Amino acid sequence: MGDLSLFFEARRVAVVGASSDPMRIGGRPVAALKRAWLAGDPDRALYPVNPNRREIQGLPAYESASAIGAPVDLGVIAVPPDGVVEALQDCARAGCRAAILFTSGFAELGAAGRAREEEVVRTARALKVRLLGPNCLGLIDLHRGLLATFTDAVNYDGHRAGSVGVASQSGAVMSQLMMLARRRRVGLSKAISTGNEGDVDLAEAVAYLAADAQTAQIVCYAETARDGPALADALSAARRAGKPVLMIKAGRTEAGRSAALSHTGALAGTDRVFDAVMRQCGAVRVRDLQEAIDIAYVAVRRAPPSALARLGVVTISGGAGVMLADEAAAGGLSLPPLPPAAAARLREAAPYASAANPLDTTAQAVNDLPVWAACVETMLDGTYDAVLMSLAYFGESARMYGPILDAVRPLQRPDGPLLISCTPHDAPNAARAEEAGFLVFDDPTAAIRALAGWSRAGRAAAPQERASDGRAAPTIDPPTASMTEAAALRLVAEAGVPTAPFRLVATARQAAAALDEIGAPMVLKIASPDLPHKSDVGGVRLGLRTPAEAAAAFEAMTAQVSSARPDARLEGAVAAKQLSGGVELILGSQIDPTFGLMIMVGAGGVLTELFEDVVFRRAPLDRAEAEAMLAALTAGALLDGYRGGPVCDRAAVVDAILAFARLAGACAPAATVEINPLLATPQGCFALDALITPCGAQS
Amino acid sequence: MGDLSLFFEARRVAVVGASSDPMRIGGRPVAALKRAWLAGDPDRALYPVNPNRREIQGLPAYESASAIGAPVDLGVIAVPPDGVVEALQDCARAGCRAAILFTSGFAELGAAGRAREEEVVRTARALKVRLLGPNCLGLIDLHRGLLATFTDAVNYDGHRAGSVGVASQSGAVMSQLMMLARRRRVGLSKAISTGNEGDVDLAEAVAYLAADAQTAQIVCYAETARDGPALADALSAARRAGKPVLMIKAGRTEAGRSAALSHTGALAGTDRVFDAVMRQCGAVRVRDLQEAIDIAYVAVRRAPPSALARLGVVTISGGAGVMLADEAAAGGLSLPPLPPAAAARLREAAPYASAANPLDTTAQAVNDLPVWAACVETMLDGTYDAVLMSLAYFGESARMYGPILDAVRPLQRPDGPLLISCTPHDAPNAARAEEAGFLVFDDPTAAIRALAGWSRAGRAAAPQERASDGRAAPTIDPPTASMTEAAALRLVAEAGVPTAPFRLVATARQAAAALDEIGAPMVLKIASPDLPHKSDVGGVRLGLRTPAEAAAAFEAMTAQVSSARPDARLEGAVAAKQLSGGVELILGSQIDPTFGLMIMVGAGGVLTELFEDVVFRRAPLDRAEAEAMLAALTAGALLDGYRGGPVCDRAAVVDAILAFARLAGACAPAATVEINPLLATPQGCFALDALITPCGAQS
Repeated sequence: MGDLSLFFEARRVAVVGASSDPMRIGGRPVAALKRAWLAGDPDRALYPVNPNRREIQGLPAYESASAIGAPVDLGVIAVPPDGVVEALQDCARAGCRAAILFTSGFAELGAAGRAREEEVVRTARALKVRLLGPNCLGLIDLHRGLLATFTDAVNYDGHRAGSVGVASQSGAVMSQLMMLARRRRVGLSKAISTGNEGDVDLAEAVAYLAADAQTAQIVCYAETARDGPALADALSAARRAGKPVLMIKAGRTEAGRSAALSHTGALAGTDRVFDAVMRQCGAVRVRDLQEAIDIAYVAVRRAPPSALARLGVVTISGGAGVMLADEAAAGGLSLPPLPPAAAARLREAAPYASAANPLDTTAQAVNDLPVWAACVETMLDGTYDAVLMSLAYFGESARMYGPILDAVRPLQRPDGPLLISCTPHDAPNAARAEEAGFLVFDDPTAAIRALAGWSRAGRAAAPQERASDGRAAPTIDPPTASMTEAAALRLVAEAGVPTAPFRLVATARQAAAALDEIGAPMVLKIASPDLPHKSDVGGVRLGLRTPAEAAAAFEAMTAQVSSARPDARLEGAVAAKQLSGGVELILGSQIDPTFGLMIMVGAGGVLTELFEDVVFRRAPLDRAEAEAMLAALTAGALLDGYRGGPVCDRAAVVDAILAFARLAGACAPAATVEINPLLATPQGCFALDALITPCGAQS
Repeated sequence: MGDLSLFFEARRVAVVGASSDPMRIGGRPVAALKRAWLAGDPDRALYPVNPNRREIQGLPAYESASAIGAPVDLGVIAVPPDGVVEALQDCARAGCRAAILFTSGFAELGAAGRAREEEVVRTARALKVRLLGPNCLGLIDLHRGLLATFTDAVNYDGHRAGSVGVASQSGAVMSQLMMLARRRRVGLSKAISTGNEGDVDLAEAVAYLAADAQTAQIVCYAETARDGPALADALSAARRAGKPVLMIKAGRTEAGRSAALSHTGALAGTDRVFDAVMRQCGAVRVRDLQEAIDIAYVAVRRAPPSALARLGVVTISGGAGVMLADEAAAGGLSLPPLPPAAAARLREAAPYASAANPLDTTAQAVNDLPVWAACVETMLDGTYDAVLMSLAYFGESARMYGPILDAVRPLQRPDGPLLISCTPHDAPNAARAEEAGFLVFDDPTAAIRALAGWSRAGRAAAPQERASDGRAAPTIDPPTASMTEAAALRLVAEAGVPTAPFRLVATARQAAAALDEIGAPMVLKIASPDLPHKSDVGGVRLGLRTPAEAAAAFEAMTAQVSSARPDARLEGAVAAKQLSGGVELILGSQIDPTFGLMIMVGAGGVLTELFEDVVFRRAPLDRAEAEAMLAALTAGALLDGYRGGPVCDRAAVVDAILAFARLAGACAPAATVEINPLLATPQGCFALDALITPCGAQS
């Protein structure tokens, strides 16, 4: 049905439910569009629609959209809930293919509102009208002046058109981002608030911004993802387009999630899964709106973000220097030392300064400005991507700060390192410093967090080739009931994950024979579709070394299990080679309600849960992603001979993860797969147990 | 030699090296003291000392302090480095018992400066003059106007006298804290910058503030602790006095530490140990200066901090509510729901609002102020300690914000919950809101972080009774050489930590006999003072079940070790009962260069290092601290029957930690002790191996 260009490229806009009062919901878009969009372009038309008025805010008013008598591209609807269906029909008759629905009183109110919303959405679909909302604050194109919104934020002076696109599920958050951007003089391209997402959702908004020529960076506020795969695709499209995405996700914590539940109709998914998908798609999570705008403030001055890794600090306070070095290190920025030649020059020019990074000039240098300038000039000589001047409280003093800026101003080069200075942003100093070409922050730690955030965004958004290994998913019949371990291990082996040698034995004699074939030590595990937790019922015998031991163990185990669980169907036992001496991992799959099939790699034993040492990625995986999962796992270090342990075959583990992911893909969404443990050894890795569970089944 | 009251209670102050130029280092204290301190109190006297002037800044000048002809209490010295010793002698002749030394050019410059500093400190000691500095910015008492400093910060209007004391190793940081406090209208009591700490150090500054009647909260900036035990004592004194300490520690990271090394003469200790000591002393670490002042801003309005746990949020934006709930949860604040009766009232008064916490009024409420007021009133009814109003960008609008404040103003009670509102602090709205009794923050997430920080400070500073268990440290001869395992285990057992039954065996026959006595399974471990890492040389045999196996294992092991390490002195083997089936822990001691004896409890095996699952505390420990260590250990959960594991005897582990700490205390500082592993089982816990290593010895 097209994309958001139906909204953004509209030339004839009707405001249905228009008001003469520019402060009312139906009056605000008329006032804003008239002022910023209509003026100066004779090809554009703005039609207030209100059956009770002949004229609204100086424009002729119409009884209905269809009464306008000319085709309309976009309907902006601000009528009470009961009138929405009729307004949509009216807009469609007038030729609208897109409508923005401000009206609230729908799904956000619960069941009754949900039914009403479904009717509205059905109507729009039938009419082939794309719908933004309901319960949204509309959208904005600051380059064209298209202020199809009722946010009060547009009534403040000082918004600028720029390159930062905003996609937000909350209208208030969109407005607040606009106001924060305005304070920091950050220009926005477009801003979209998606409200209840009856039709257009966050994913589509991000996808539009990813393709939008005026947008170079995207700030995204999400409470939930109604269509997880589409959001992942949109974020990946932004990465391919070289546009970093700064993602603010509300509902990180249990408390936040329960607040989200009462606020929107949608359930906020597990944060860990969301985090994994963001990582995979190259989006960077930021903690709050201020941090997003602080990063955007750097972004519009220094793209690409990847060119922001090496930081130089010049400070009048050694203590400040130490704190800034801490902050930079915590944020992943490096503070390389000055090259020897530069350090030697500096010792010449500023004998009382430390020829180090951070460079501590001592407060003396601000009374001795040629020395200050010499220090900054040395820092600007190419070693650093950005140089931060930290002047402590001298940033507040017009008398001190002006001459400092003047001393440094001539040293800047258009293609040189970014120069950052700190002064309260409400002081006249701030405007003066920005005019002189500095990035200005209130506070040097905020500056470093923003630089680090932008650098992180660069690393996260680095393009990644998805290298398929060319192997198709195995074709299997999705299981409808719990499988025995033997059946699950066979599937796992067929899918390409090696298993320890095993066979299903039905009698004590077969158990004895198995030991001869497999060799000692051997393990016997009860085989029953009803007993997924075998050791709980005495269904595991370890360390069998002779055929006689194996036969006896089979008899004893079968008797014990039969007596403990007379109801369970017994199919014999799995006799398997007992391997040891490697590193235990867990592989698992789960069907996330938002993002679909997720693959999990975890440390074995208690480490998975106790230390939460698990890594998720959305399927399908490629080799680089499987390697990244192992690298992100703390216990992954155990594979490399940690503290005298064995050096395991990491490539075999990666192969196993990929084969596992293919099998999990073949089983999804009907069933999930778990290999626990996967034993990594120097001679390859082996699935020692496997579980395939139909979704919805109790285990 | 007395305390800092010699400085703060001075009535006759001489400024040695005084300048007529109020912007020069020697001119600033004259100008500031004359303006703020001298004026209005005839009992005070200020004497500029400068041999080249008859008059300085309107006051008679003296050729020397001793030429003043009246006794002087405090000398403020601002002469070049070469003149400092003479200036001190002059001050002492004039009767000074305290001197502040601004002059730089001492230990901060390295070896040469260090020698010069030592001479100055020796001189002061000999003269019985207490010394603040050198290389410091002095100290300030805002209540008395004692501005014995050359910081430019005092030249700004708007500083207030209040209850927040500042102790800082950096003068620039002290100044910046003053400026940040001024911006937030937070009143300070006293501020002390300790500089190079030739005499007065941070610990003494904190101890003074802990006892100071005008100080209720302490902000402390530390790069290092020259006297760790004294700092710990000072912080504990502050806790006993009910004064929370907000600690900013620079040098958290490797990069920060190396910056600290180039900045000061002192080595910044390991951050993990520092962190443990802060926790133990009830100080709360904050990340940066702004956070410290934001917390102080709450502190001066709501003491004690412990009364700040339950937060209510009223917001016009559901999205903002979700983010704030996230932030509150992350900071440890709870957001309890509204009580049912209040929720029912609210549904009546504000049908479109969510009767939840966060309470989302929707933006409609700001156009319907009685509803807004009803929502806030409901939140104020006693369920919450603080209520945050989050108005999104309406905080920026004078037109919108004024009436909102007016609607809420009458609802406040002097003893009621704190009311917090957010508006940019440079807008006229901010002053207006503060006058109306609100706490004002730029940003709601910053507000929540500050509330959470103050709440955390309250929990950390809660008074703790140190309950000695009345058991004295064992008396032992500190070992001078590495001990054998048998000797170490014997010491451990004598100190009160149970060991597995063991004996030292010298022959195969004795090994066989040991098995009969100890029982199977048994382990044999080679006994040699030269082989601390026994298993590396084949010196461990496990799972011995019969006397014959034990004898054979003894022979084979001795032969293998002798051939691998013919140089090693062999004393036989330790034969011990092989225990299993519990949870392995590690106990260790180390002598920290700053804080002295530290006790470490860690998870066993690879968990300690890989997951950094270790907890430190400074010795001596009491029972509550030993319990807290186990509680802080992630692997501590394994003791309680984690995932079907055994439920271990936690009290026995606590006993073992306390006994271990006593032994470690008896060995310190000559030697360190390690028990690895300590096996916790349902039947008690047992040291399975022990190592006592003289400090400085290679192991």
